[in-house]
Amino acid sequence: MISKGLLKYIRSLQIKKYRGLHQAFTVEGEKSVAELLQSGFALETVLVTQKFYDKHTALLQKGFEVQLVGEEELGKAGSLETNNAALAIARIPEKRPFLWNPAQLVLALDEVRDPGNLGTIIRVADWYGLTSIVLSENCADFYNQKVISATMGSFTRITPHYVALEDFLQNLPAGVPVFGAALEGENVHRLPLEPSGVLIMGNESHGIRPAIMEHVTQPVHIPGRGGAESLNVGTATAILLDNFYRHL
Amino acid sequence: MISKGLLKYIRSLQIKKYRGLHQAFTVEGEKSVAELLQSGFALETVLVTQKFYDKHTALLQKGFEVQLVGEEELGKAGSLETNNAALAIARIPEKRPFLWNPAQLVLALDEVRDPGNLGTIIRVADWYGLTSIVLSENCADFYNQKVISATMGSFTRITPHYVALEDFLQNLPAGVPVFGAALEGENVHRLPLEPSGVLIMGNESHGIRPAIMEHVTQPVHIPGRGGAESLNVGTATAILLDNFYRHL
Repeated sequence: MISKGLLKYIRSLQIKKYRGLHQAFTVEGEKSVAELLQSGFALETVLVTQKFYDKHTALLQKGFEVQLVGEEELGKAGSLETNNAALAIARIPEKRPFLWNPAQLVLALDEVRDPGNLGTIIRVADWYGLTSIVLSENCADFYNQKVISATMGSFTRITPHYVALEDFLQNLPAGVPVFGAALEGENVHRLPLEPSGVLIMGNESHGIRPAIMEHVTQPVHIPGRGGAESLNVGTATAILLDNFYRHL
Repeated sequence: MISKGLLKYIRSLQIKKYRGLHQAFTVEGEKSVAELLQSGFALETVLVTQKFYDKHTALLQKGFEVQLVGEEELGKAGSLETNNAALAIARIPEKRPFLWNPAQLVLALDEVRDPGNLGTIIRVADWYGLTSIVLSENCADFYNQKVISATMGSFTRITPHYVALEDFLQNLPAGVPVFGAALEGENVHRLPLEPSGVLIMGNESHGIRPAIMEHVTQPVHIPGRGGAESLNVGTATAILLDNFYRHL
């Protein structure tokens, strides 16, 4: 039986303000919680069904509270339509400074607002081996439950850095190439690309803000020939990253 | 004021059975309805706000019923969280036979169930200039409102062909290359690809069914190096299509 206090706490973590206040967030569903349990995240409480407990007993022998709950109870506590496995309350890791690594491509997002899109982007960034992501301050919140769910566990391997993006770009070492996705950019299939520098993806409706675009040294464009006016930002990020990682 | 009968009809079209019975579907939101009005689809009724009417008057002078409605009323009639523009009831086009064109890549989906994924795939297929898509019979329904919304208007340019996929593959002309997305496939960056033949994308959880896989002459894989186990099927379709259309 989940206590009223715990239920209230879990629900409060659906809201960004309370995630900030408590420095905690929730993770739901079998795959996501299983990946979380194998990661270095500090945990407060993990609610599990008997089924999940039996399957993942070895992962549950650590220093946090484990509560056995029924599927129905679990469904009511969380935000997923169906969850017959687990819900974990994890600590938001302390902010780490962004360390510039000239040998790695830096993916930077300018005002990407949709949690589903951010989740897709984190998953594909993890696919290509990126370990961090830079976000303008008003991007969707990394610890939003919809973002976490859409990453399919990749949130455990990508460190978010929320920054004032203009300042971040101004302070880059001299000579670093800054790529930016833009409809009027160069055909990405015609550019010799290596995974270093910065790649900026813009907002779902407006693209990259003009003040940010001023720092872009190489606008890039994905050539199409059909009638679609644009690509979804998650889709476009995936295609561009694939073009940077063609040596793989 | 939307009549009770019309409201009931609109809501019934959220269900596949009734879409089949009435051979009609709904389209919601400004961009999607504006694209619909410029397409060849036959329409029954279009509900518009004054704002949409003023902006798109020229598109509304055709042989169908136009009703002016308030935003609140429109929101209640449709399935979108917010819709301050329009909702259209369109006729499902008559089925057309699939015509084999050796000069075009055929995208075929095997049990892709999620409407959002199908919508993403239709949008990216349209981006690369495909004009049709082949779907196994138990894929998500093309005329599902979530699919239509996710295509951002691309549903007007892509013709769906629901087929018994095994029969379809068995009856292909001899020598047609059949590509299939599979984790154990060949590195897509190392294959010389041209946009002809068939590309099969599989189910979100299980990939391509074994009986379908038997028809695949060239399994293909998107190389990654991070911790993510897989890519979302919409994301993977986008990356693979980009690899087929690198001459663009």
